[in-house]
Amino acid sequence: MHEAASKFDPARPDGQNATLTLAISADGRPGIGEVYEIPARCGRAVLLEAGEVLSIVNPSGSQVCDFWAFRADDMREFLSMEHLRTALGRTIPRPGDELVSNRRVPLMRVEADSSPGVHDTIIAACDAARYRQLGAEGYHDNCTDNLRMALLAIGREAPEIPSPFNIWMNVPVSGDGSFAWRAPVSQPGDVIALRALTSCVAVMSACPQDMTAVNGAAPPGPLGFSVTA
Amino acid sequence: MHEAASKFDPARPDGQNATLTLAISADGRPGIGEVYEIPARCGRAVLLEAGEVLSIVNPSGSQVCDFWAFRADDMREFLSMEHLRTALGRTIPRPGDELVSNRRVPLMRVEADSSPGVHDTIIAACDAARYRQLGAEGYHDNCTDNLRMALLAIGREAPEIPSPFNIWMNVPVSGDGSFAWRAPVSQPGDVIALRALTSCVAVMSACPQDMTAVNGAAPPGPLGFSVTA
Repeated sequence: MHEAASKFDPARPDGQNATLTLAISADGRPGIGEVYEIPARCGRAVLLEAGEVLSIVNPSGSQVCDFWAFRADDMREFLSMEHLRTALGRTIPRPGDELVSNRRVPLMRVEADSSPGVHDTIIAACDAARYRQLGAEGYHDNCTDNLRMALLAIGREAPEIPSPFNIWMNVPVSGDGSFAWRAPVSQPGDVIALRALTSCVAVMSACPQDMTAVNGAAPPGPLGFSVTA
Repeated sequence: MHEAASKFDPARPDGQNATLTLAISADGRPGIGEVYEIPARCGRAVLLEAGEVLSIVNPSGSQVCDFWAFRADDMREFLSMEHLRTALGRTIPRPGDELVSNRRVPLMRVEADSSPGVHDTIIAACDAARYRQLGAEGYHDNCTDNLRMALLAIGREAPEIPSPFNIWMNVPVSGDGSFAWRAPVSQPGDVIALRALTSCVAVMSACPQDMTAVNGAAPPGPLGFSVTA
């Protein structure tokens, strides 16, 4: 049943794509105000200083962004969805909400969200195993490997694979605990702005999921981002 | 804002209680059919072989059990709530459901559940920071430290702090993503039976939460468990 030829290594991708070559700079520091693209099916990491605002753009409106943030000076502390939900008393953060770590420390704050605010915090990042189970042949780009590769590209390693903040992902939970996989309700050009409250490494993956409805009817597309002081 | 005098170490407890002295044997192997107690506010670990069934008993009916399971031969692979929800299309597992790992491999299966089936998979384990935020003075027993200590007691270390399967915990999620903290609906003597599908280390914590309603009106109490072949 189990193919454990090797032990699980959170830092090591199961395959690779262009993400490994997409560092925005050697250490991930951005040009302030510069607009960066996250190519379709790929990921990128950015090193933020405290107070800076990361704005993520959804060009198509239907592209999900898997998102993570790690403390720059201690990668074992990171944005934690299970601690976030506990702190908020809700599954989905809104503008004004602080995003807390696995030590219950606010790492970021949602400054603005032009979309209707439908995001997800309960679903794991897609990975090689997920696509094999869905019937994919060969290697399929996936958000878990994009996280790993985006960090490797700036000289860092994933200490574990935290559950992601799935921006624009629409998986509504019913009162009985069941949920549905739906297309995003965000619109072309929607932006979410997240302020770093401490220096952290943020990672974004343009989710390459094309075997369920989470990215809408169009093929997986790119995302954009920029950082302002 | 951040008290990070030290880096986050998932294996190291923030304080300690009797859990450190409660190993059921040097390596956690149980006597088959023997009934063990998990004292109030403490945790215990048990090493299961493939095919064995772990039955956890709720004497009061109102005591929550925070639960984790790790592959015995690779502790970095463990029961993952975010992967479990994805696999089930539901937030809460039922009898017959397989419980999958962070590699999407079934580690256990729910064999039976005498309770109404109200459990939780979205809330983080309580920890020292949680109780400080709730206003506790000094060290408060907590499930995260109980996990760490129960593993140390059998000579193992927590590789990370996975989000727990909160057995009998009643945190119903509404369609809008909000949720409530309610007392368990389980009854005295309720039992959940989990079959190991591969050799794994299971850890149970009798949740010491006495500052919210999740353990009902009574003080936190003990749990029981036994293993059958």
